Amino acid sequence: MNAFSEVIAEAAPAASATTIRCTVADLRRAVSLAASATERWNHIPALACLAFHPAAGKLTICGTDLDRLLSIDCPAECLAEFGSFTLDARQVSALLRGAEAKEIVTIQREPADAAGDVLSIQLGPLTIKRRQLIPIEDWPVMAEMDGEHEAITLPEGALRKVLDTCRHCISSEETRYYLNGVYIHAVEGLLAGVATDGHRLALCSSGHQWPLAAQILPTRAVATLGALLTVGGSNPISVTGWTKPRMKFAGEGWSLTVKTIDGTFPDYDRVIPKPNGDNYKGRAVLAPALFRRIPPGITSERHAAARLDLAERKLSISAPSDGLDASLPIEAEGDIAIGFNMRYLREFAQNHGTIRLQINGSGDAALIHSEDPEFLGVIMPMRV
Amino acid sequence: MNAFSEVIAEAAPAASATTIRCTVADLRRAVSLAASATERWNHIPALACLAFHPAAGKLTICGTDLDRLLSIDCPAECLAEFGSFTLDARQVSALLRGAEAKEIVTIQREPADAAGDVLSIQLGPLTIKRRQLIPIEDWPVMAEMDGEHEAITLPEGALRKVLDTCRHCISSEETRYYLNGVYIHAVEGLLAGVATDGHRLALCSSGHQWPLAAQILPTRAVATLGALLTVGGSNPISVTGWTKPRMKFAGEGWSLTVKTIDGTFPDYDRVIPKPNGDNYKGRAVLAPALFRRIPPGITSERHAAARLDLAERKLSISAPSDGLDASLPIEAEGDIAIGFNMRYLREFAQNHGTIRLQINGSGDAALIHSEDPEFLGVIMPMRV
Repeated sequence: MNAFSEVIAEAAPAASATTIRCTVADLRRAVSLAASATERWNHIPALACLAFHPAAGKLTICGTDLDRLLSIDCPAECLAEFGSFTLDARQVSALLRGAEAKEIVTIQREPADAAGDVLSIQLGPLTIKRRQLIPIEDWPVMAEMDGEHEAITLPEGALRKVLDTCRHCISSEETRYYLNGVYIHAVEGLLAGVATDGHRLALCSSGHQWPLAAQILPTRAVATLGALLTVGGSNPISVTGWTKPRMKFAGEGWSLTVKTIDGTFPDYDRVIPKPNGDNYKGRAVLAPALFRRIPPGITSERHAAARLDLAERKLSISAPSDGLDASLPIEAEGDIAIGFNMRYLREFAQNHGTIRLQINGSGDAALIHSEDPEFLGVIMPMRV
Repeated sequence: MNAFSEVIAEAAPAASATTIRCTVADLRRAVSLAASATERWNHIPALACLAFHPAAGKLTICGTDLDRLLSIDCPAECLAEFGSFTLDARQVSALLRGAEAKEIVTIQREPADAAGDVLSIQLGPLTIKRRQLIPIEDWPVMAEMDGEHEAITLPEGALRKVLDTCRHCISSEETRYYLNGVYIHAVEGLLAGVATDGHRLALCSSGHQWPLAAQILPTRAVATLGALLTVGGSNPISVTGWTKPRMKFAGEGWSLTVKTIDGTFPDYDRVIPKPNGDNYKGRAVLAPALFRRIPPGITSERHAAARLDLAERKLSISAPSDGLDASLPIEAEGDIAIGFNMRYLREFAQNHGTIRLQINGSGDAALIHSEDPEFLGVIMPMRV
């Protein structure tokens, strides 16, 4: 080794067992993702913490709320000998928020002293001493699952699309807990997702094989996957499904283990109207711009009904308690009048763009189509 | 009149006693300002409404919470004969939000019928029938004030600056109600504003004559004036002050009447340290960037103290309950150590840029200076 390379070796020391070094930008991204799987308001202090596991060349950061376990790899100069530790998710996020993206974070263990386990963190000019309030042994671990399971690989964009298409119809009613998620299953062997709250339903089909057991993916897991999967992305992800209520998703540098909902999703196919060909009673086309004209604030009634007068080609809202009647021209055909929950129609248009309603009768569910042939919506009528 | 001008006259009819016409942009601005003076959560339904007073060429829109009365003129094609009416502030704001800025709003009275007083509003393609739930007679009016008063004219920017400089020190503690505002008064005949919560104080002087009686302008009136007065604006506004707790502000197309706080502002001058020349114990310079390094989220203690070690040129925060010690280098001189509420220091820096602390002793209030010679701050020390 000549003198020059010795200088370089001194300036950038090799990974050491007592120091972790990484950039603010990398750590910020990993911490922010991992923190999204923690529960901010909880009675178990350990759940507000992230677990940090150093390994050769990477720092794996884990967050959990006992229903989800999310692991994110952060590129770092470190060794497994450093040992795992915990840090409060909100505190470390706040500290990183204030730093410059290009700065280097240095984490070191203080020499053991009476006060306990202290980490010393250098963040640009900021020096931090952090006593570990939660030992790594107290950090909750989700038990590994054994038993029958199956794995598959598909592009991240495909799963993201199925979840995005359905999620606005997830029920938030806790008494029907089996509706609090997206039902991921196979229709004729191909991946499909469906969500419903009993008043409306969204179904998304796809062209991807799905040999896994059907599972109900809870709302929060859907949200976490939304942060992990890129829209339209073609990177492969692997999905492992157990026959028990458990799924695992993994991509480049991350993995998410989820407890799925232990219940039976209803036979939704029965509520989808199946008119014979063109044998329906009417049609209406509703564009997102129309809903901007009648925003939610115009009435204090949460479940205001929109009345569609197909013959008059008119959508109207009547809110007697607010002294309001409003009407707008729409594109329609048919000669019946029918009412729908205004908020549900708005959410369909917000999520799917211009929607086309196929109306089968004034007391029957209507079918909703959009530009996307893989989407199908159903909405129940409302008395007006 | 030739045939051509007849056509124009038909296309743009002269103002009529049964129709009000104006643009969405004008009405939106006026409604949004007037609505800012209403109280969203209240037990008096009439206070959620705005009063609309048509006059020749303008529609005056008023909002009140009984402590403030704000009138905004909206350019409109109308006549006083149309008669005044009320509309719900949130509903009309929501309806206007959805419309295009250039569209025309047409308001007409429906022929009198059994159902009562109905307005018909056309907003682009949207047709609205609005029954008036609150008759204009029920709309609350603030009594006009008589008695001794004085008026003055000054540029809007001057008053805005005095209020902006002080408002972050207004107390929100309701037991000391006389601190819940900015004290507007004369210092040696010139306008000055001051706000304090007993722990910190901000004073702003100005070069404008102020012959009016001293008044305490409540927080909400300060906020409303913030929306009405342009920063650095030179348009003249008139201010009328009574000897009773009442003030009136008026500019081009608006007026605001305010009930000021009926109390005695403390003799704040006694708490401002007055060191003899350079006879102080130390100095420290704190830039806004420094506070971004240690954001509020790093500790759950709302009143965390920042310890300034002048000799070591170091600012440090210790939050034992969060297991955290953090320290940063600062520019300082002197050799004592002193503590201040971190949040208060941060708010001074957020509002005044880089602040310079002049420290008079570890148990004494410190003076705060900024780039602005018209500003003076005071902060009480905290035990660390």
